[in-house]
Amino acid sequence: MPAPLRSPNPSASLTTLREILGYNVRAFRVAQKMSQEQLGFAAHLDRTFVSQVERARVNISVDNIEKLAKALELDPAMLFKRPVL
Amino acid sequence: MPAPLRSPNPSASLTTLREILGYNVRAFRVAQKMSQEQLGFAAHLDRTFVSQVERARVNISVDNIEKLAKALELDPAMLFKRPVL
Repeated sequence: MPAPLRSPNPSASLTTLREILGYNVRAFRVAQKMSQEQLGFAAHLDRTFVSQVERARVNISVDNIEKLAKALELDPAMLFKRPVL
Repeated sequence: MPAPLRSPNPSASLTTLREILGYNVRAFRVAQKMSQEQLGFAAHLDRTFVSQVERARVNISVDNIEKLAKALELDPAMLFKRPVL
């Protein structure tokens, strides 16, 4: 059974750019009804890495940000916009 | 004598996200009349690292992108917008 598609926590603090990025990756992924595994596959990244990005646990590089944006079919700038909560 | 403030090359190809980021860092830095050394000092990064970012030679991480955006007093999303050339 696939993991449920959980949206990001709307009461997240989002202090750092990592946290904003992680929030947005999860929000756009869930909006597109993709699992972390599906996003990882599309972006040529590991599912556990996607999970760590969404939880702001890793200091992701620009090349990998580009892969995620392509897999989500998004303008990369969208991943850095502070969400309106 | 400080290095001249050279704007980014307007005929740059900007194929990758690294290249867009590097172009934008240089364009915003020069618009603010900062040298690479001044930006490096303000961002707590080495001048040579700033130079490498502007030339898309390094795969910069999100934490360092945040430092550059803060030093340039910019919304980080601005650094990822494709410039209109």
